[in-house]
Amino acid sequence: MKKVVLLRHGESVWNNENRFTGWTDVDLSPKGMEEAVLAGKTLKENGFCFQKAYTSYLKRAVKTLNSVLDVMDLDWIPVEKSWRLNEKHYGMLQGLNKAETAAKYGEDQVLVWRRSYDIAPAPLASDDSRNPRSDIRYNELKDCEVPLTESLKETVERAVPYWEKVIVPSLKQYDQIIIAAHGNSLRAIIKFLKNISDSEIVSLNLPTAIPYVFEFDDDVNLLKDYFLGDPEEIKKKMAAVANQGKK
Amino acid sequence: MKKVVLLRHGESVWNNENRFTGWTDVDLSPKGMEEAVLAGKTLKENGFCFQKAYTSYLKRAVKTLNSVLDVMDLDWIPVEKSWRLNEKHYGMLQGLNKAETAAKYGEDQVLVWRRSYDIAPAPLASDDSRNPRSDIRYNELKDCEVPLTESLKETVERAVPYWEKVIVPSLKQYDQIIIAAHGNSLRAIIKFLKNISDSEIVSLNLPTAIPYVFEFDDDVNLLKDYFLGDPEEIKKKMAAVANQGKK
Repeated sequence: MKKVVLLRHGESVWNNENRFTGWTDVDLSPKGMEEAVLAGKTLKENGFCFQKAYTSYLKRAVKTLNSVLDVMDLDWIPVEKSWRLNEKHYGMLQGLNKAETAAKYGEDQVLVWRRSYDIAPAPLASDDSRNPRSDIRYNELKDCEVPLTESLKETVERAVPYWEKVIVPSLKQYDQIIIAAHGNSLRAIIKFLKNISDSEIVSLNLPTAIPYVFEFDDDVNLLKDYFLGDPEEIKKKMAAVANQGKK
Repeated sequence: MKKVVLLRHGESVWNNENRFTGWTDVDLSPKGMEEAVLAGKTLKENGFCFQKAYTSYLKRAVKTLNSVLDVMDLDWIPVEKSWRLNEKHYGMLQGLNKAETAAKYGEDQVLVWRRSYDIAPAPLASDDSRNPRSDIRYNELKDCEVPLTESLKETVERAVPYWEKVIVPSLKQYDQIIIAAHGNSLRAIIKFLKNISDSEIVSLNLPTAIPYVFEFDDDVNLLKDYFLGDPEEIKKKMAAVANQGKK
């Protein structure tokens, strides 16, 4: 049996300030660091022992992973990072406070931007300093791959190929893998794995730093999936994510 | 021009207790974590921007690297880990206090064990729980590669091929590389780079967490090498390492 654990990063400084983050490389909050340690403890107590880890190019995911691996005494395992696991790019919204944006544009518009499957926020201008093209970490991307904004659909279109072409082949070699990433890049993978419809996926609210376990047979057919941890705590965390767009 | 920075990990819990560590996977001490942060600040202030990092399978090196990269805002760069960058294996001495060992066997014998080029400490018995064969992280090693003890010569013989076959080729692609490793695996690389004799290399005392910069031309010919930081502080740190084997 093969196990893949999906882990959304712990609370970031901007989650905490309720601002749209996207590809902005903000740090974990102190609470986020604690959440990461707790996730590591939960995984260790449940007998997990990863052989390979994947994460994004964003420090809130990398540092969540580093913390988890350290708590599990697995600092030494190979880690692969990819921009394809980055959060959805939020275009012009990056940096804005969610509640302020809701007060200005209305909760419904914010919900459309946050939760539409195929409607992307207004794009960055190409000369905007937030354009990923001006960040050396994205030098490897072709021009057509560099987002100025993204819908969830577009996030799916760049994250799922990473699952198919990189992670699935590595499941031939490894039995246990962890992917530390973001609300929307993980939603993209979950949509693919569980064949969730475009309209349903937008209301899946992934709690921060709660290990989400996917079990597969040796041919990578999904057998079952479940969260690790206290069900009440998980429910509370999911509700908190859902309420972020409220005034 | 190409730059490679060699960085010995910050003080570990066992450096602090003055015990032989070798392949034992001990953590950084709080002081060691501070040293790592300081190394990151020094590198950032001096304008370094690494594109690739290498480290060992031991957490004191991995965590020193993670800290340095985080301070430099480079959490996202690719990191490759290898057992070939591990500390020298100290055989039966692993876990013993250096001063106690000196009191028992004499300072001269300890100096021979710590600083001979080709004399290794007494080996572990193959059924010793410290045998790396019983640690899954070394599963990839052939039986003949798994050390039960090592001389510096043997450390050179497994570390230098990593420099030649992995790091040098990557200097075609990258201009700035950091290698976070250990007193003896770095000594092995320095011996090779500066063509230092067997008898001289044993008295090179590398200070903890002081960036040691090697500059190369595009054909990887060494141009110059220098430590980054306050010369007085570096001198003090080198003396402290040299004095660890005293009673």
